[in-house]
Parts: sequence; structure tokens; C-alpha cells
Amino acid sequence: MSVPDSRQAAVELDRGDPLAAMRDLFALPGELIYLDGNSLGPLPHATVGAVHRTLREEWGESLIGSWNEHGWIDLPHRLGDLLAPVIGAGPGQVVVADSTSVNLYKLLWAALELRPDRASVITEEGNFPTDCYLATAAARAHGRALEVVPRHELEARLDDRVAALVLTHVDFRSGEMHDMAALTARAHDAGALVIWDLAHSAGAVPLALDRWGVDMAVGCTYKYLNGGPGAPAFAYVAQRHHHHLSTPLPGWMGHANPFAMAPAYEPAAGVARLLCGTPPILSLAAVEPGLATVSSAGVERLRAKSVALSELLIGLVERRCTGLGLDLASPRDSARRGSQVSFRHPHAYAVCQALIAAGVVGDFREPDILRLGLAPLYLRFVDIWDAVERLREILTERTWDDPRFTVRARVT
Amino acid sequence: MSVPDSRQAAVELDRGDPLAAMRDLFALPGELIYLDGNSLGPLPHATVGAVHRTLREEWGESLIGSWNEHGWIDLPHRLGDLLAPVIGAGPGQVVVADSTSVNLYKLLWAALELRPDRASVITEEGNFPTDCYLATAAARAHGRALEVVPRHELEARLDDRVAALVLTHVDFRSGEMHDMAALTARAHDAGALVIWDLAHSAGAVPLALDRWGVDMAVGCTYKYLNGGPGAPAFAYVAQRHHHHLSTPLPGWMGHANPFAMAPAYEPAAGVARLLCGTPPILSLAAVEPGLATVSSAGVERLRAKSVALSELLIGLVERRCTGLGLDLASPRDSARRGSQVSFRHPHAYAVCQALIAAGVVGDFREPDILRLGLAPLYLRFVDIWDAVERLREILTERTWDDPRFTVRARVT
Repeated sequence: MSVPDSRQAAVELDRGDPLAAMRDLFALPGELIYLDGNSLGPLPHATVGAVHRTLREEWGESLIGSWNEHGWIDLPHRLGDLLAPVIGAGPGQVVVADSTSVNLYKLLWAALELRPDRASVITEEGNFPTDCYLATAAARAHGRALEVVPRHELEARLDDRVAALVLTHVDFRSGEMHDMAALTARAHDAGALVIWDLAHSAGAVPLALDRWGVDMAVGCTYKYLNGGPGAPAFAYVAQRHHHHLSTPLPGWMGHANPFAMAPAYEPAAGVARLLCGTPPILSLAAVEPGLATVSSAGVERLRAKSVALSELLIGLVERRCTGLGLDLASPRDSARRGSQVSFRHPHAYAVCQALIAAGVVGDFREPDILRLGLAPLYLRFVDIWDAVERLREILTERTWDDPRFTVRARVT
Repeated sequence: MSVPDSRQAAVELDRGDPLAAMRDLFALPGELIYLDGNSLGPLPHATVGAVHRTLREEWGESLIGSWNEHGWIDLPHRLGDLLAPVIGAGPGQVVVADSTSVNLYKLLWAALELRPDRASVITEEGNFPTDCYLATAAARAHGRALEVVPRHELEARLDDRVAALVLTHVDFRSGEMHDMAALTARAHDAGALVIWDLAHSAGAVPLALDRWGVDMAVGCTYKYLNGGPGAPAFAYVAQRHHHHLSTPLPGWMGHANPFAMAPAYEPAAGVARLLCGTPPILSLAAVEPGLATVSSAGVERLRAKSVALSELLIGLVERRCTGLGLDLASPRDSARRGSQVSFRHPHAYAVCQALIAAGVVGDFREPDILRLGLAPLYLRFVDIWDAVERLREILTERTWDDPRFTVRARVT
């Protein structure tokens, strides 16, 4: 794709976009250009009705009976099986429950139990902080240690002392994407298990967990899957590990027979044992319509548009923002990049705030990253054109020196 | 209160009930008599609007900005402080997040870290199963053991080997209520910590956690607090333990500065460190109006009516169901009983199903318990009269032999 040289040319790209109509599925306020779907996807219109039905017709009308009548008891599994094709997994290997953090702890624990004689867990410098906190805690609880190594040393550090490799597939700062198939194979060569965090991948880039032989994975449903703020997360465990899968959090929802109220824990079959307490049904109910927006578009088509959007963004910044202090912090090669484009700027926080004030919502990540998420379900090519123009104006006019934009808010 | 001898007399009791108008706060379908608010409280009308606003005006309009603009980031604390008076706690000691099960694991872990030289955790036979599963897991992860002892031996077993006593305040089967103040004092005499599960207490019986010197507590918000199916649970830790509070699940939401994205975990002050992953906002948003129904009624007034309702139920069963096979499984003394009344019956499952078919929703608990919850916010004295009449008809006509009522469903 050549970079269009006019706004009209960007509008023409939207006319030819086979996913253009998907935008109508979402509530997007006014003229806002939302480049933060990698933090929180927008509200699908269908979610309003789905949650309303769960409230009024299920909870309101059937009360406790809803656990059977409306299938609440199976919801973590039903959603897991709906999500599975999006990450290249067959049925019966995914559940939706708890948070990404709690699920990562469960899987790390399970992986360490599967590799009792190996001393360490490996992750990379700059991995999402909560993943490192929980990996440290899970390793310590097993008398092992987390080793944090630079990305370029990962492969060399995989040896017979390593129980598990824990990585985020698409880096939350730079958008750089690991070669999941190759690293998984390399870890297996060393006898280690691999746990992938798919927070910035699920619904954004094609995945083939089963085919690539991935052992375990977690991810969240509120970014590219549009499941709502803090929506329950997912956990994947390959079928071959189900029989020996242990959990540090044995709860009644993961019991073989929850309502027998047996004094001893007997794990349910397969990934069901990853359930612990009673799941938050309203937040779970919101996941299904969000997920449906991705499933109906298809991840391959979404990826094609995502690459086109990010190539457009980078191309326009290269052409229109030359000498204005932006450095590309994402890989230039789209094959190594997720569905976001990040730039470094010495005043990235203020630039981000000025952009938000100008109706372009991206986000800032410490220390100097302006992060722009490109969710192809609802973004138009013309949005990218307009966003870059506003960015150029801000950088040119140095509105980022405005004191309004330099005091840091708590959440950015 | 003398037991009324006619339906009309029960109607008169409702006319004199200062809480009678609270019933209008809830969606209660048709003629249903709902004696299962101890499993899942009904839908408060206000919750529909609150969740709708969270969907449309917060998520839909402000998207990621809602974390600041609509205070999502503080919601676990704001709800905790709203809930605190209901359990007799001062501010800053309660958070609402995750499930009761996960929270219990966190607190058990923290308690074991506070008592490193003590070998065991004590609980009682018949405690809610998931509490036993998680106590076993937490103890094992620390190289300790869970000891499960009969209720009458609890006090005798409290000695200097005991790190923590973990009990459910109101028994889920029988409704029998522990003397929380006395047992807490007894445990402290032995140098042990106490963790109370308040699932069947919060919003139903007066509690004074601070005054009674309780160390830690968990509880759920979807029973007497009407927070919605699987609504996030609460965790209480007394101020004096905050400085040394550890967590097995160190996540970014419990970090001192979550958005600094620091590579090392630094716990937030106090109970904030009990947060782990991103909380499910839609389910959290539903907690507030549910909680408000209890707060506005006041726990003391709720308790007075609850006792009156349960005395009526027991009195009517004693008078009207003599010789029909029901044995009271709850304490006869209301001071030792929570807000439920349970009966044993050899065909309890079938009786429960027949009752449900007759429009009276109670629940069954293995092996032979018919459990009737008495939530005073929306139950009328005449409901108790009518429920006992239907129970009498079923037991007299032996409809519980009907094969429709003897095949067990998955969730009862």
C-alpha cells in the first residue's frame, strides 16, 4: 500500500475497506478518534441489550434458577469455547474467569508442578510488570527463582534448569511481537514449558496455539475483544497437560461435583479445575457480544487491516512529522509488530495529553512512550490521517509545553 | 411475638412492619415467595439504572478515561468503605475485589506469614467446602497443615501450635452462628489469628469486627447484600496488621504506583495491596445499589425482623407440620441462629423441588437439608404463612414422591 497523499485518498481507502461496516457495531462518541482500544475496547451496542437481559430477564426473573435455566454455570466454558478459534485453539481448552493476573499465577504454579526438578522461570526485561510480580511470587512459593533476562539472551538461557518460559507475545510498550512458534519450539527443545500472555494479541493478530504446540496461555478480554472494563480473563491449557494439571487455588467452582459439597477437593476434568470462586456473571455476560464482533470479522481480515492502518500511520508520521522529535519505538517490519504503533518523544506525556484534548485518545507509558493502538474493527483510514495531522499541529505549535498537559493524572 | 393463628393475623404483622416499604426496592416476580436470598439476593430496581449508566455514560462515552473521570480506579475502596459499617469496621480496612475464595486464600497466606513459627490452621468439620479446599492449599504452600476438628473441640484445640483459626460465622447448612467475639478472644489468648467468613452474615446479622478485635474477614456481596450473581467479594484486615500484610498474589492493582510500571513489586499501603488484577467494573458497579438497600434499612432493624420471621416460620412449622417428617436443623434459640432456618427431611431434595414448583423457592443442601433463607428486606410475614401452608400441603399430599421432583438437577 502506498501512503495516500491527501485526506480524500484516505477516505477512498475506507470506501474500499471490507470491514468498514463493523464500525457501526460500536458506541463511539462524536468525532473522537480512539487509538486506545489496546487498553479498553469500546462498547459494542449489542452489549447493552445483553447485559440488560442478564439483569432483567435472568437475575430479575429467574433469580437463583438462572444458574441452570440461563446457563450461568457453564458460562466460563461457553465463552472459552467461543474464544478458542480466535487464538487457534480447539474446544475444551479455554475458560474465562478471574483476572489475567490471577490466571497467570495459576498457570505458573501448574507449570512448576509439571517441572518439579527445574530451578528457574525465565522472562524478559520489560515484560508487563504484573506478570513479573506474579511470576516472582509463584516461583518463590515453589522454592524457585524468576530470572529476568534481556530479550536477545532468551534463547541462549533456555537450558535444562528452566521449568518455564513466561512471555508476553506483543510487548505492551513497543508492540514488538515474538515469534511464538519458534520460541515455543526452542523452549521445548530445552524441556521447558511455555506460558504466553496474549493480552495484546487476542483478537488482533492471528494465533495458532494448538498448531504451535503452546503449553499454556492467558489473556484479557477487554482490549481487542471489547468485553468491557476489567472483564474476566481467559486461560488456555493444551489438552496434553490436562490430566496432570494442578491449581494453587482449588475452589468449589473447579470441583468435580461442586454441589455435592464434599469435604475434600476433587478436581474437575481438564481446564474446569482452573475455576475457583463464583464468577462475576454481569461482567461475564458482557464478554460474549464483544467477542462476537471479533469472531464475525475474522482475525485474518482484522490483521490485514491492522497492518494497513499501522503502515499508514508510520508512513504519514515519517512524511508529515519529520524533525518534530518522534522516534519510532515499534518495529518497522509489520511482521514483527502487533496492532499498535509506539513513538518515543522527550515530552511524550504532555504530547499525549494535548492529543487527548484535541480528540485523539492514545496513551502514555513510562518513561517516554506515546502508544497508539490500531483496532481495525472500528478505526477508519481517515482517522489515521486526521490523527497524524493533529499530532503534527501539536508538535509544531508545541502545545505540549502548555502547563495543562504536564501535570500527570493518576491513570493515563 | 406470639405465632399468629390466621393468615389475616400475618397480614396485620406486615401492616406494622417498619421495613415493609423496602420490598418495593426489588424486582420480585409475580407471586413468587423467595426464600433463597441467602444464595442470591434479588435484583434491586436501582441496579438496572446503575449498570446502564456504567455501560452507556461511562464505558460508552468516556471509554478509557472512565478510570479517572468516573472513579473506577477507586471503586474497590469506595465500595469497601460503604460496606464497612455493615460489618462494624472503620474506613480503610475493606476492599471489594475478586471472589470470596480467592480473597480467603490471600488472607490465609497473610496470616501464615504473620505466624511463621506455628504449624497448623484450624477449622471445623462442615465448614463451607471451598474454604476448606483453599485453607488446605494455603497451609500446604507454607509447609503447614489444616486441621479439621468438630465444633465442640475448637476451643480446646487452640494452643501455641495454631497460626490461624478459620471459620464461617453462620453455617451454610444449619444457620448456626458462632459467638465471634468469644472465639476471637479465645484464639487471641492462644496467640492465633482469626479469619472469619461472613458470607451468610454480612447484611443479615449485626457485626462489630473492630470492637471484637477480629483480625481478618472475607464475605460475599451477592447474598444478603444483593450485589448480583457472582459479584466481587470483600476482604477486611484490621488496621493493626496493615503494616505487615503480605499477599501471595502481588498484582499491579495492588502496587504502590500501578502506572509507574516498575519492574519490582512495591505494595500499596494497607488493604490496597490485596488488589491484584484489573477488577470487573460492571459487576462492581452493581454492588453499590445492592449494598445501599441494606445500609438504608440498617442492620439492627433487619436483624429484628429476621428474628421475627424465623420465629414465625419455626412456630408455624411446629404447629402446622407436626408429624410430617421435618426436623429443625437450626438452633431453636434465635441468638445462636443466622438469618435462615433449615430442616432435615428424608426426602429433602424432592420436597424442595415440589416447593419450587409451588412457587416457594428455597434450596436443598446435601444430604437431607431443606434450607429456607429469611431476608427481611423483601419478605413479608404473610409470605412465611403461605410458604408453610404450601409446605404442609406438599408433605401431606406426598407430592415429593412425584418423579418430577426426584431427579437431581446440577444446581439446586
